[in-house]
Amino acid sequence: MEKREQLYEGKAKKVFATDDPGLLIVSYKDDATAFNGQKRGTIEGKGIINNRMSNRLMRLLEKQGVPTHFVEELSERDTLVKKVGIIPLEVIVRNIAAGSFSRNYGVVEGTPLLSPTLEFSYKNDSLGDPLINGSHVLGLGLATREELVTIRNLALRIDEILKHFWASCGVTLVDFKLEFGRLPDGTVILADEISPDTCRLWDSATGQKLDKDRFRRDLGGVEEAYREIMERLEKSMEAMK
Amino acid sequence: MEKREQLYEGKAKKVFATDDPGLLIVSYKDDATAFNGQKRGTIEGKGIINNRMSNRLMRLLEKQGVPTHFVEELSERDTLVKKVGIIPLEVIVRNIAAGSFSRNYGVVEGTPLLSPTLEFSYKNDSLGDPLINGSHVLGLGLATREELVTIRNLALRIDEILKHFWASCGVTLVDFKLEFGRLPDGTVILADEISPDTCRLWDSATGQKLDKDRFRRDLGGVEEAYREIMERLEKSMEAMK
Repeated sequence: MEKREQLYEGKAKKVFATDDPGLLIVSYKDDATAFNGQKRGTIEGKGIINNRMSNRLMRLLEKQGVPTHFVEELSERDTLVKKVGIIPLEVIVRNIAAGSFSRNYGVVEGTPLLSPTLEFSYKNDSLGDPLINGSHVLGLGLATREELVTIRNLALRIDEILKHFWASCGVTLVDFKLEFGRLPDGTVILADEISPDTCRLWDSATGQKLDKDRFRRDLGGVEEAYREIMERLEKSMEAMK
Repeated sequence: MEKREQLYEGKAKKVFATDDPGLLIVSYKDDATAFNGQKRGTIEGKGIINNRMSNRLMRLLEKQGVPTHFVEELSERDTLVKKVGIIPLEVIVRNIAAGSFSRNYGVVEGTPLLSPTLEFSYKNDSLGDPLINGSHVLGLGLATREELVTIRNLALRIDEILKHFWASCGVTLVDFKLEFGRLPDGTVILADEISPDTCRLWDSATGQKLDKDRFRRDLGGVEEAYREIMERLEKSMEAMK
């Protein structure tokens, strides 16, 4: 399968058409942005790691019954995925307070939450991706009630699977962002990526951040953290075989 | 029942202890604030209108099975209420896009929503009363799951009752804010007030604003709007007898 017309260039990925109208090629870049594009930079090798990691995690989820857009890894940076109509929500699951949650609600970063929380941001750069709740989503017609139930159930199931997997790597899954899309028949599946760009991943023993917060917060050792987390994932997946 | 120690002075009300530990006296002021206290002013006669209106609407809700803190109107500005532990949430129900909803989600003010939306703000002035969702509320332990279900059901029931009542006054209920509290036995009841300070009320024929937005947005005719909406309520309640 080969790349045809470039359909879209996002902050961290390009998307290409293929000869199959139901399939796209996603190509991962090393570009990194934060704070709605206000901070920009490059994390060398990030695209290769994110492509590989996201594909492996999506395969893991598929095995446990979560439908995803993943089809086939084509190269270091390129992956064949199912074409979906993206539901314009960032779906954020949190196990531990961090980032915007800590700032918004005055909760010290690192505080465990009594139960996993699920939140939606309305994907809209000009509005700044504002927090939105389920009843707003229904009131604005961004998704149906049935789709919201599916998304909630899948997101919490994904949290269970990924928490368990990352624990086997000595890593705490603090929070993460998902995106979902609709197949032509209306089925809701997981799309986008799962990577250190979209998850907060802390070393379970030391609390060391092994994710994009090293870039956002100028903590240094960004490339090393991405390589470290990838190595841990591969070792753990090797052991699971 | 007489006022004893002043327990609290808020933006629009003072609260006093009484000789009964389970009862408080609320005293309505003419002071008006907006934008988290950044704008301040006085709306002459507002306290009298809000006291009277809130009590009448709470009685209307009580008759239809909604438990409230209302006990007895003591004077023009003073009302005896049940003492509750306030749940630190502003519960906002919207039927039509306006205000922060329109700004946050880029929806033209006046756009009807496909279904009523319900949102929570975390009552915390220093954090700016941020939007918070149900799973955050559970994750932070601000309310229990059972309390949230009760609050949702009561808020949507109140919306139905008030929409219907205001329609009989030729008024469209655009949105409104509620607060709930716990009695010592844990029962969740409606507290705070229901008034033009806490509701958006538009003339159904002309769209004219008959609420605190006239103050917030410097539209003029503030006192007249409060008097007009009160007259309409009284006429409609008179006709219901």
